[in-house]
Amino acid sequence: MAASEEELELLRRQLLGMKEETEKQGELVRALKGNKVSKKEIDEAVEVLMRLKLEVQAKEKELVAKAVGSDGGKSSSKETFRQLLNDTLSNRLFFIPAFKIYGGVAGLYDYGPPGCAVKANVLALWRQHYVLEEGMLEIDCPCVTPEVVLKASGHVDKFTDFMVKDEKTGMCYRADHLLKDYCNDSLEKDPLLTAEKRQELKGVLSTLDELNAQQLGAKIKEYKITAPDSKNPVSDPYPFNLMFSTSIGPAGNAPGYLRPETAQGIFVNFSKLYYYNGNKLPFAAAQIGQAFRNEIAPRQGLLRVREFTLAEIEHFVDPEDKSHPKFKDVADLQFLLYPRKEQLAMEKPVKTRIGDAVSQGIVNNQTLGYFIARTYLFITSLGIDKERLRFRQHLPNEMAHYASDCWDAEVECSYGWIEVTGLADRSAYDLKAHSEKSNVDLTAFEKYSEPKEVETLRITPHLKLLGPAFKKDADTVGKALLAMSEEEALGMKAKLDADGQAPLEICTTGKKFTIKKEQVSISKEMITETGRRFTPGVIEPSFGIGRIIYCMYEHCFYTRPSKSGDEQLSVFKFPPVVAPIKCTVFPLMQNEKLNDVAKEISIALTRAGVANKIDITGTSIGKRYARTDELGVPFAITVDFETEVSIDATLRERDSRAQVRVPLAKIASVVRDISDGHLAWETVLSTYPNVAPSHDD
Amino acid sequence: MAASEEELELLRRQLLGMKEETEKQGELVRALKGNKVSKKEIDEAVEVLMRLKLEVQAKEKELVAKAVGSDGGKSSSKETFRQLLNDTLSNRLFFIPAFKIYGGVAGLYDYGPPGCAVKANVLALWRQHYVLEEGMLEIDCPCVTPEVVLKASGHVDKFTDFMVKDEKTGMCYRADHLLKDYCNDSLEKDPLLTAEKRQELKGVLSTLDELNAQQLGAKIKEYKITAPDSKNPVSDPYPFNLMFSTSIGPAGNAPGYLRPETAQGIFVNFSKLYYYNGNKLPFAAAQIGQAFRNEIAPRQGLLRVREFTLAEIEHFVDPEDKSHPKFKDVADLQFLLYPRKEQLAMEKPVKTRIGDAVSQGIVNNQTLGYFIARTYLFITSLGIDKERLRFRQHLPNEMAHYASDCWDAEVECSYGWIEVTGLADRSAYDLKAHSEKSNVDLTAFEKYSEPKEVETLRITPHLKLLGPAFKKDADTVGKALLAMSEEEALGMKAKLDADGQAPLEICTTGKKFTIKKEQVSISKEMITETGRRFTPGVIEPSFGIGRIIYCMYEHCFYTRPSKSGDEQLSVFKFPPVVAPIKCTVFPLMQNEKLNDVAKEISIALTRAGVANKIDITGTSIGKRYARTDELGVPFAITVDFETEVSIDATLRERDSRAQVRVPLAKIASVVRDISDGHLAWETVLSTYPNVAPSHDD
Repeated sequence: MAASEEELELLRRQLLGMKEETEKQGELVRALKGNKVSKKEIDEAVEVLMRLKLEVQAKEKELVAKAVGSDGGKSSSKETFRQLLNDTLSNRLFFIPAFKIYGGVAGLYDYGPPGCAVKANVLALWRQHYVLEEGMLEIDCPCVTPEVVLKASGHVDKFTDFMVKDEKTGMCYRADHLLKDYCNDSLEKDPLLTAEKRQELKGVLSTLDELNAQQLGAKIKEYKITAPDSKNPVSDPYPFNLMFSTSIGPAGNAPGYLRPETAQGIFVNFSKLYYYNGNKLPFAAAQIGQAFRNEIAPRQGLLRVREFTLAEIEHFVDPEDKSHPKFKDVADLQFLLYPRKEQLAMEKPVKTRIGDAVSQGIVNNQTLGYFIARTYLFITSLGIDKERLRFRQHLPNEMAHYASDCWDAEVECSYGWIEVTGLADRSAYDLKAHSEKSNVDLTAFEKYSEPKEVETLRITPHLKLLGPAFKKDADTVGKALLAMSEEEALGMKAKLDADGQAPLEICTTGKKFTIKKEQVSISKEMITETGRRFTPGVIEPSFGIGRIIYCMYEHCFYTRPSKSGDEQLSVFKFPPVVAPIKCTVFPLMQNEKLNDVAKEISIALTRAGVANKIDITGTSIGKRYARTDELGVPFAITVDFETEVSIDATLRERDSRAQVRVPLAKIASVVRDISDGHLAWETVLSTYPNVAPSHDD
Repeated sequence: MAASEEELELLRRQLLGMKEETEKQGELVRALKGNKVSKKEIDEAVEVLMRLKLEVQAKEKELVAKAVGSDGGKSSSKETFRQLLNDTLSNRLFFIPAFKIYGGVAGLYDYGPPGCAVKANVLALWRQHYVLEEGMLEIDCPCVTPEVVLKASGHVDKFTDFMVKDEKTGMCYRADHLLKDYCNDSLEKDPLLTAEKRQELKGVLSTLDELNAQQLGAKIKEYKITAPDSKNPVSDPYPFNLMFSTSIGPAGNAPGYLRPETAQGIFVNFSKLYYYNGNKLPFAAAQIGQAFRNEIAPRQGLLRVREFTLAEIEHFVDPEDKSHPKFKDVADLQFLLYPRKEQLAMEKPVKTRIGDAVSQGIVNNQTLGYFIARTYLFITSLGIDKERLRFRQHLPNEMAHYASDCWDAEVECSYGWIEVTGLADRSAYDLKAHSEKSNVDLTAFEKYSEPKEVETLRITPHLKLLGPAFKKDADTVGKALLAMSEEEALGMKAKLDADGQAPLEICTTGKKFTIKKEQVSISKEMITETGRRFTPGVIEPSFGIGRIIYCMYEHCFYTRPSKSGDEQLSVFKFPPVVAPIKCTVFPLMQNEKLNDVAKEISIALTRAGVANKIDITGTSIGKRYARTDELGVPFAITVDFETEVSIDATLRERDSRAQVRVPLAKIASVVRDISDGHLAWETVLSTYPNVAPSHDD
């Protein structure tokens, strides 16, 4: 297995070198063409370029064959798969390293045309699935956030990673990454490790997230870990805040940050949204927008970036009633859950009915269970494989102290199991934190169906008498009296009734006072309560849109041999609703009449709101299909010479490559309906005459 | 007019005070309810609250009546209109000052639920109108941008406003705003001003944008202008860069900014996009995203903010051919143009056929004209009044030195004529700037239909001989030889042929050399050119989405008396495609059966992708219509007791208040089609039985 991996790595490097050479030759050809040199010189350069391209193709074939053949090499085939995928994504501009002409910036990417369309489609689907179907209140807040908000939320103090610096070059690294790489490398590459040592390193890996700065530093010293680029010694680890900071306004006295999540914008608006919802609970608010994290050293391509799109939901509930009226609609869904118990016992995730998980208390409550199930439906509707999607419960040490239960939706991809959505019951933590910091009431009020008579304690300090008696302490004494518990107050009442006076100790300062009977009234009274006031709990599903999209790319990508068998063709099997372009339109060959019909079909598709692309290049039909498959276009319409007679055209489906003849008058609306998901391809197949696939395809 | 405005101002202040009092009383009632006091105390507080609310209503009525009555007071009615509009926008959470519980931040706003939905609809329409219908390449780049990009674009050096500081408090102001306010105030409020002085102040106002720091400072000194808040003296004006700055990565050595526009992300990707487009021009790229400007002192509410959504198009063209194949489709459109000539002659905008404007050279070229026309169609489709939309050409001094022509789409609103979209022919400036800074080729290549034989000058410095002759200067001499113009080169050739040597002067240093005949060959040759290489020109339509939305709010807002005539009801006449909610569903009264039918209709609407709201409160039908009108909901379905018999329900249109009976089986698809714009309300009116409007409505 090791040998095979090395061989593949060698092939990959060779391929990379060859591609660079090809690119340089391409540049040369372009430069020559611009520079007005003789035709002969250009022709020679073009010939070299063609030869290089053929060599690259041959090497790619070899690599694919070897990678697929090396069955033991699961990890190597993963890397080959990832490289092929990323080549396709980057060649077709699904994404582009941002600001590349200036050398780029780590962790910043652009979505190119198809990537941008996929993202818009995923967000539209998210809006339909959550905002519209659940009647959520969507809002849209600024990215620039004043410090006070993120101070209250805890981000200013706690949103940090531990960093070490190369002591000579000043280069920065994440301390836990250095340690993790050291452990993994030793385990993989050092055959002389003792079983004991192996156990130790595995132990470090499994507790990596829990180590503090001192512990990380001690391990780095113990293992003599140095800076990977220079082999210089590194500093002790220290916390680095991951927020991008800025200054708001011209005076320089208003610090701010780029938001690290969108949730805070919802929390600070709680009262307005509660009012908008008719002062009724539960309700959910949602926000889609950019978030920013100034990662120390971004890795893993599109999975760990410095700017990303989040889609977050804050579902506000009565903490005493977390049932959900629509839970019954999803209770029978079954999918992979990975509860704490199974993780600790080193067992596998279990396919579980969500109704059972909630009734058995594995998932804390119906609302959390409902969102887990709805998230399962959303993620799988994007083309992510349900067998490689699991919901993993946080272990107690992973969870914030205030949270009651947390589950991560994780997708298995070439990087391992990756968190794409977090679902957390955050209790009342956030609203309480903001209410405290802002001194603004962020509570809800539940009106009883009819008023209740309840016995209640009433303490009335008589301020007119306290003032003269306690002077500057009068205010403190008054407040201390009001703050007494029911037991303390009744004890004091008993003492006052018996002795006419009673002692009072201010617990924060230890100061003691003597209270006289006339200075305070304490009584129990029956009062009418019309309802109860409380701080709502929050259940938060938070979606990393970029990560979801990347995992979808991995799960939708496959290769198939070309008809002639001499090439592997790449295909994205995106569900139509996600596909960046829904349909391509081709004339069978270059011909003015066919072109005109194709253009008319394209215009009709555009009017119907269907993203489409017309391809009137003279390239062979097989090549044009291959191009469109590589963009994940689910449908293709081909106009041929029969079209004029029969007034219909061929409609081809990407994955089955099956074809039908559909009348021109109907073709735009048929494609719209199958693209929207309102019509199944199977129905189309059984409605219209089938034709044999093109021999080119 | 002055008296009337003062009176209105007094009324407005009274109203504001009363509203504050009402709000406080509301808080008191809420606090009492939470605090378990006796029912009597609460009832008393509620009674006070009700009285206050009635007083506010009466005062509002008075204000509206006075404002409408004061016909001379055009500006006062504008302000009243704006106040009513903004009250509605803010009460219904179209927008919310951001981070309000912490006192807010000037220039930052949240879009609340209806505002957020309107924004999503406007963006979806923009995508359909531009990206889809014009086949544009949409991309999505980060907000965080490294300094080098914005250095190349000129923003680091030139994206500034002039600022002055209060010399004692340090408070910052925009220098031009202080001067503008002084001039306007003097002109409005000082009846003793001489005609000469009036003329002078008007002159200052009209040249405000052109004043530099010294000139602004001189005027501020001359007029003895002080800080508005404190009356302290202010500093001299100095430039303040409007970009939010930050630092990328942990090392602190990579300065960055939040992008002030989205365009740069497109320019730096030109080569990739050109390649994606099959190396063909013209093509357009588009981007929707957040942009940021750290305004010195934001004013004008939603019109001048520190973070906003831009939708920008960069249409790349061959600078020698700016024709547009689809121009003929829009050439007959007529709308208000305000060319330079009319502005300078103080004349009014002219309704012009865009075809004539281009053919007469008023608009520089077809492509620019095409985008102006398409923008006219887009903006008016949102419900903006075509009589209050004009395209104003930049005066020569407004335009960047490199631009060939610029037009702003301006909408008249209560703040005056506001720029909502800029349409500029920016020539090749941006691509050249980035190519120079990055040393990356950003050109296009046009292949000739057949190769051309052209005579060309060939200069070949013989480096082997230059080296020994000129030592360390050899490189400079070689480059200078290559840089000669055709005239210089042929002059040298003549001299070399005649004398065997010729002088060469390096123009940058003044150094002189003598070149010998054998050191350089100069000849004219015939070569074959396959095409030409050039830097594309860029035509840029740039849309301020927030400004467009605010202007749309103003143009769609109106009031009408309630049936009883004792109230003015607010209505937004949003076109259905823009409306935040398309349809409300009411049971006629509280009744379980009616509720069930209403819920089923709501579910069917949701499945059809129609944003809808169900209202099963027992409020009167008239009140419920009023609520929905105030959100601009175009359609309402009412379920009544006839529904069970006739299996249909009432469908009401917002502006006409006309009603029809539509079968339940069809109602969801009918509402979807009229909401999407695929079906006209008039067709619905003529298809289904009409009914008399509810007596409540």
